[in-house]
Amino acid sequence: MAETYRVGLLGHGTVGAAFEQLLAERADAIAHITGVRPEVTGVLTRSRGDFEEILAGSDLVVELIGGIDPARDYVLRAMRAGKHVVSANKLLLASHGEELWSTAREHNVQLRFEGAVAGVVPVIRVLQETLAGAHVERIHGIVNGTTNFILSEMARGGTAYADALKRAQELGYAEADPTDDVTGKDAAAKMAILARLAFSTPVTLDQVTYEGIEHITGEDMNYARDFGLALKLIGTAERVDDGISVRVHPAFLYPGHPLASVNGSFNAVTVESEAITEITLSGPGAGGPQTASAVIGDVISAMIPPASTPETTASLPVVADVKSAFYLAMEVDDEPGVLAQVAEVLGMQGASIKSVVQRGLGGQARLVMVIHPLLESRFYGAVQLLARMPFVRSEPRAIRVLDEEFND
Amino acid sequence: MAETYRVGLLGHGTVGAAFEQLLAERADAIAHITGVRPEVTGVLTRSRGDFEEILAGSDLVVELIGGIDPARDYVLRAMRAGKHVVSANKLLLASHGEELWSTAREHNVQLRFEGAVAGVVPVIRVLQETLAGAHVERIHGIVNGTTNFILSEMARGGTAYADALKRAQELGYAEADPTDDVTGKDAAAKMAILARLAFSTPVTLDQVTYEGIEHITGEDMNYARDFGLALKLIGTAERVDDGISVRVHPAFLYPGHPLASVNGSFNAVTVESEAITEITLSGPGAGGPQTASAVIGDVISAMIPPASTPETTASLPVVADVKSAFYLAMEVDDEPGVLAQVAEVLGMQGASIKSVVQRGLGGQARLVMVIHPLLESRFYGAVQLLARMPFVRSEPRAIRVLDEEFND
Repeated sequence: MAETYRVGLLGHGTVGAAFEQLLAERADAIAHITGVRPEVTGVLTRSRGDFEEILAGSDLVVELIGGIDPARDYVLRAMRAGKHVVSANKLLLASHGEELWSTAREHNVQLRFEGAVAGVVPVIRVLQETLAGAHVERIHGIVNGTTNFILSEMARGGTAYADALKRAQELGYAEADPTDDVTGKDAAAKMAILARLAFSTPVTLDQVTYEGIEHITGEDMNYARDFGLALKLIGTAERVDDGISVRVHPAFLYPGHPLASVNGSFNAVTVESEAITEITLSGPGAGGPQTASAVIGDVISAMIPPASTPETTASLPVVADVKSAFYLAMEVDDEPGVLAQVAEVLGMQGASIKSVVQRGLGGQARLVMVIHPLLESRFYGAVQLLARMPFVRSEPRAIRVLDEEFND
Repeated sequence: MAETYRVGLLGHGTVGAAFEQLLAERADAIAHITGVRPEVTGVLTRSRGDFEEILAGSDLVVELIGGIDPARDYVLRAMRAGKHVVSANKLLLASHGEELWSTAREHNVQLRFEGAVAGVVPVIRVLQETLAGAHVERIHGIVNGTTNFILSEMARGGTAYADALKRAQELGYAEADPTDDVTGKDAAAKMAILARLAFSTPVTLDQVTYEGIEHITGEDMNYARDFGLALKLIGTAERVDDGISVRVHPAFLYPGHPLASVNGSFNAVTVESEAITEITLSGPGAGGPQTASAVIGDVISAMIPPASTPETTASLPVVADVKSAFYLAMEVDDEPGVLAQVAEVLGMQGASIKSVVQRGLGGQARLVMVIHPLLESRFYGAVQLLARMPFVRSEPRAIRVLDEEFND
């Protein structure tokens, strides 16, 4: 039985509860990686728990209270007591980051905060580790899922802002009081943190210019479509002359931009640097389990620096025959009943047609289909049968089609 | 003056040379982060250097020779001598990974290999750290830039495979002997590594089924467009029943798929897990400076585990007035000469029109424009002037447009 690594949890809202559950589920796997088994040994909420007691009984403290007070005091006291801290508190880091980071350095503890920006999208880790040696020129980000959901709704159906906001609230993507999201303040706090890491210069929330999406109309969206533009709430942190600019505002994107196709409540960040051109990271930006996953990644890193790849824990068989959807093309005699016979042969092997295009080519026709997913062995069985049919005039051509569900 | 951290470099091809240059350029910044200053203290090529001597004079060894022999022997000997190793050698890791990783564990050294898969796209780090506690269900990847470039060329211009390959060779995206790329073998090695990390089960290159792109025709591409499909060489690693499937083959993607819009020589990887839904990472997959950047990220991580956020090194001014492109919409009298007058007012402030749409609405017209980038203060100056013009019938509406260059 592995030794216990004691985690004190401050805050038990959506993310806190998801974190406690996910940590319990994954404790064995984490024990395999780190050699010690993490366990929540104390929880502080408004109505239960005592901070001093939890602190004394923890190796690491996870702060998921949010806001400045009392989170700031707890985080400082935990680090001064020599405990690593993992936090997802963007407001705290964007307002008091230097105080917190200098306390962490002074007491030689880790302060990790992947969950504070873009949930499980690993932008903090990438800036601090992958790109630690890079000279970052610019960051663009969609770092607020609520506003991206609202703008995606408006673009999709020509929906008015107020209706899209209401729908976001109904679906749980926006809070009852959405002010911090729709005014751009939440995104501004996140951009302050990213700018601080990318440029190694102090940046606080009050230095970030921000503008929200409340004034955007459905008509703007419609006209923009004439230019092929997509509207997003974009955070920018970039070098400008001898300084930097950090700002958040709605902006139209041309279709080739890596952030133009980021829709719904997803977040995405693009980091540009001369040596690397650009990298883009995207994924679900918020939600309990997603942010909790980011917090767990931080807890594992704090538990033990990943020295190497752990031993394998399984010896899974590598399977050869899997289910795939297929594109299938062949030349056939241009006669009545051919498509029906093709469908019948396919059906015998359990293959069903999703879409079909037939085009005449003189006495022949080219038949191109997309086939719903089935075991590849069954599909290739059908293709062999088809190749022998008298009305088939060319070797059938088959290419897999991925993830039909994305189009459903 | 910071202490020197001695890096032994094995191999001095495109990536090796780029690494040596980039490390020298960034040495001061890295010294700030880690407290020690990295320096290449020995280089081994076919014609110069002695391995034993380089090993004795290094704290860490970077292996950029490629291939199995003698790279395997060098990496093993370095780790047995207690040195951390950073490698970008996908073939070595996909063929002898378990031997290397167990040697690393045994001698308590780090073996890092971000550059082996998808260049600077941080998929290794994300699997090993961010998602260390996650139960990964599936990985999809475009992990070979050469074939993605060729397929993008074929899709763009209806170019034949042979012509697109020739163009890739001329531009340096494909080697003179492109066999490993176009047959899918290179991608298969990378998917073996990703599957090993994601599923903690041994996977070697010889267990990966792969199929290349040599048989793809321009006609396949044209017909697929009727279904809205994009063709990519896709690597898949996924759980199937009680085993896993690891394979590489061409596949069509529906337009909503996160990999469908990854074009040219870019790489991208999507990781799916129940708790996180999915995250997507994309960026330049190959090239000397890009892979060298990934190697440097690994070197920094090996030098010192990132305990915390370093002190700021700069105190850059936060600039308020930046250049932006704008969308500008307003209602105007539907009279001759109005557009000319609008253009003149804009021009007085240095604003020039990139695109314009004018639509009649009874006696009025709606004028919608995209304006080329200019200082925001100048643009808003022009808007104030326009608002006062007698033919302007509504408050002008301005929204920023990002990165015009993506559409040029």
